[in-house]
Amino acid sequence: MEKWRAADRLLKFSSRFASAVNWNNSCKSKQGKYFYSVATTVHRNPLFSIISPDDISYFKTLLGERGVVQDALALDAANTDWMGKYRGSSKLLLQPKNTEEVSQILKYCNSRCLAVVPQGGNTGLVGGSVPVFDEVIINVGLMRNILSFDKVSGVLVCEAGCILENLISFLDDEGFIMPLDLGAKGSCQIGGNVSTNAGGLRLLRYGSLHGSVLGLEAVLANGTVLDMLGTLRKDNTGYDLKHLFIGSEGSLGIVTKVSILTPPKLSSVNIAFLACEDYTSCQKLLLEAKKKLGGILSAFEFLDSDAMSLVLKHLDGVRNPLPPSIHNFYILIETTGSNETFDKENLEAFLLHSVESGLVANGVLAQDINQASSFWHIREGLPEALMKAGAVYKYDLSLPLEKMYDLVEEMRVQIGPAAKVVAYGHLGDGNLHLNISAPAYDDNILAKIEPFVYEWTSKNRGSISAEHGLGLMKAAKIHYSKSPETVQVMASIKKLLDPNGILNPYKVLPSSLLSQN
Amino acid sequence: MEKWRAADRLLKFSSRFASAVNWNNSCKSKQGKYFYSVATTVHRNPLFSIISPDDISYFKTLLGERGVVQDALALDAANTDWMGKYRGSSKLLLQPKNTEEVSQILKYCNSRCLAVVPQGGNTGLVGGSVPVFDEVIINVGLMRNILSFDKVSGVLVCEAGCILENLISFLDDEGFIMPLDLGAKGSCQIGGNVSTNAGGLRLLRYGSLHGSVLGLEAVLANGTVLDMLGTLRKDNTGYDLKHLFIGSEGSLGIVTKVSILTPPKLSSVNIAFLACEDYTSCQKLLLEAKKKLGGILSAFEFLDSDAMSLVLKHLDGVRNPLPPSIHNFYILIETTGSNETFDKENLEAFLLHSVESGLVANGVLAQDINQASSFWHIREGLPEALMKAGAVYKYDLSLPLEKMYDLVEEMRVQIGPAAKVVAYGHLGDGNLHLNISAPAYDDNILAKIEPFVYEWTSKNRGSISAEHGLGLMKAAKIHYSKSPETVQVMASIKKLLDPNGILNPYKVLPSSLLSQN
Repeated sequence: MEKWRAADRLLKFSSRFASAVNWNNSCKSKQGKYFYSVATTVHRNPLFSIISPDDISYFKTLLGERGVVQDALALDAANTDWMGKYRGSSKLLLQPKNTEEVSQILKYCNSRCLAVVPQGGNTGLVGGSVPVFDEVIINVGLMRNILSFDKVSGVLVCEAGCILENLISFLDDEGFIMPLDLGAKGSCQIGGNVSTNAGGLRLLRYGSLHGSVLGLEAVLANGTVLDMLGTLRKDNTGYDLKHLFIGSEGSLGIVTKVSILTPPKLSSVNIAFLACEDYTSCQKLLLEAKKKLGGILSAFEFLDSDAMSLVLKHLDGVRNPLPPSIHNFYILIETTGSNETFDKENLEAFLLHSVESGLVANGVLAQDINQASSFWHIREGLPEALMKAGAVYKYDLSLPLEKMYDLVEEMRVQIGPAAKVVAYGHLGDGNLHLNISAPAYDDNILAKIEPFVYEWTSKNRGSISAEHGLGLMKAAKIHYSKSPETVQVMASIKKLLDPNGILNPYKVLPSSLLSQN
Repeated sequence: MEKWRAADRLLKFSSRFASAVNWNNSCKSKQGKYFYSVATTVHRNPLFSIISPDDISYFKTLLGERGVVQDALALDAANTDWMGKYRGSSKLLLQPKNTEEVSQILKYCNSRCLAVVPQGGNTGLVGGSVPVFDEVIINVGLMRNILSFDKVSGVLVCEAGCILENLISFLDDEGFIMPLDLGAKGSCQIGGNVSTNAGGLRLLRYGSLHGSVLGLEAVLANGTVLDMLGTLRKDNTGYDLKHLFIGSEGSLGIVTKVSILTPPKLSSVNIAFLACEDYTSCQKLLLEAKKKLGGILSAFEFLDSDAMSLVLKHLDGVRNPLPPSIHNFYILIETTGSNETFDKENLEAFLLHSVESGLVANGVLAQDINQASSFWHIREGLPEALMKAGAVYKYDLSLPLEKMYDLVEEMRVQIGPAAKVVAYGHLGDGNLHLNISAPAYDDNILAKIEPFVYEWTSKNRGSISAEHGLGLMKAAKIHYSKSPETVQVMASIKKLLDPNGILNPYKVLPSSLLSQN
């Protein structure tokens, strides 16, 4: 996940971005059509009911006045994603206070065939968390209790509306950390993190949420509460259904409680910034780092020379950390361990060996927290630098490590001199953030990028969405990463658990599959 | 997972064990009934067809003579589980050589309504891998190719019939290890490991297979091949269906290929054997170990004084590692890291601090490989010692850590002087192996254990199967660990993916749920 703290400060750029990619307010729901790209149109499903005064009365009786939001300003915020790129026209936001209320809401909506969109912190990047048309928005933000924490096992159980940063603060006092960290942590909710299988900055070290989430409570479309809220590391009793709700973007159920394994906080953090002259060396360095740094390796990020030049040009106060020249590739390595002396010596020995063996052309170990921050700022400042440089086409891809940079090079040939291809990402996770930076948005450039980038990714068994999800943006593109048979089974499971299709419609899966019976 | 190497040598005990728990050959399929406990009877599903000569001809045409096994000796072995506790009466064992053959077999069986049992190394403990009646046995043991290995990412792709030990050897040459290790590794197949979500000795360090398996290929009951064989750490494109096949014990599909993330082999291993005087100290020690040893902690096993006394009495050549007295609890700690000097100093400092703080009453750090082996032998020798001591009732439970030993103490009160309650297990994973050791099997003792042990586990939100699965043994007991709504959804998914119920029938889920429509 690109750290969003930097991007948060850039909301002023969003209107330019939106218009340039043919997104603007005039695209929102008109005569039941929603345009989300030049080529694709989504139609409102006519089977869904329209909110009636009786519905509002029911919800007010159920939730009280406070739980039923019809205020225009609040609705406008909830209808719009944080980039200002996606906009719905919902007339109703519901704020349940507990699982039973979520269950009653869904039971009612299902019986009335009212479509709903589950919304957490609304920090998604693919239009998954806002209505497409007039879906009822359900936000569990009032469900924000920490239910239990076991200091020995490190298992935290909490309600889905807990904001990630609040959980991080709570755990900090207990000497633990969350196994995921995102730039959006100040707004995003753990229920949303789980529902989107958020990746983030700690995945290399602590793995995906499929590994660290131990249990869930989720409410199905018909109001059935599934209690899968185990706190156990090992439980082989039947099918592990919670995984269906991790990463299904709220389309199979609404997550109401989460049980998660949290690692102890470790005191010793070290950061190095290195230069490599070719991509093969970057790969070898990663292999060596895994071997030599073993359990303490916590980040292995990379950027290429175009990315570094961009940062140096557009970000204030950033200096070349390895002067005087620009190298072909840069690697940021972070270690997190429990022993300051050992860990630092370990990293120093590794770096020395890497330089001697020729893998690393140059490098520096952060001597203090300021230097460490400045190294992270180069990597984290990339989205900001790209926005400042002009128009940018952004892709979030997973690719086999040995192929990853081939795409970047082929894209450069494909695009020619019209735009710059800028590559960076979580090399340790095989996750490439591919950015095409141009003076202005231009359909001729876009035509050179798409479908080339998706086809290339598909051909090399990559993923067209490493960590952002499919949402509305890529629901119709799932076949680039998943086989027809697999997508068909997904559709069958969707129809099994949500036969009326009320949960987050138009997203994740192609609508055409869901209307077939 | 209890290491089965010890138990393998004990097959001579299996007949005594079998008769004492009312298992013997006379229990096998008679008039369509199969007795698997005093209280429970399973009836053959009359909807399933019986193998005909035409079926045999079809399979011979499809697989060739070699792939169709009807030899009595081979069938006897495949019909019987390794403990000699479960026994089916299948007349046919099929050995496909590739996914296409598996697909054709299942398509045919589904159309003919022939029940099948997928069988790997047949090392399961709960009757999941052998036929209950006359199900066709499908063993993918001929599909044993390693398809690819990426040294940089550590991703191994192989066919499901690969024996775990062969994969371990292959990776050893490459400088990597499998993220799981089991005593049964010489026989068990990776497809079976995945299908049963095998736990084992490395779970504390590397997590469950839900985290480390990156992709799967599986064949559904109707022959559809699901290609979910990704090699990516991050892929958020639709529902992550592979998790349905991890731990569903072959009842949703047959796993044919596996993609798995393997960690680099680390050179430095250290082992300490410690004594604690109370269970609270054991828990605190675990917390301290997680904090102080951070990423290098690779095992945290425990046994109680009764377990130690048993080992000292019944295992040849074992000496009290912390003489002269027997302490209340023993902890085995293993660290695995990349730097011999640092890791050893780290562990020594941790141990010193633990002794000074009073958590540890006594302790010793292994000085060489022989001493390390002798410490592991105490923990691994427990199943053998228990078998030598007489009759043993074995339970594999996950429990919240702080409650775990309460069950042991309550069980002692419950049982009284009639039997010894012996506790050991993977404390670091919250996994208790609870053993009740008696001079002989006795229904009065069993009546004191069951359903008490299941009810207690259920009341404390534990799991009645931490790592062994449900199989035939506990299919009807799933409600002790899973809510009715959750079990109902499992049954719906089973019916969706296997409408005729041909895949591993009578297991995992209560048959009563599957016959409802």
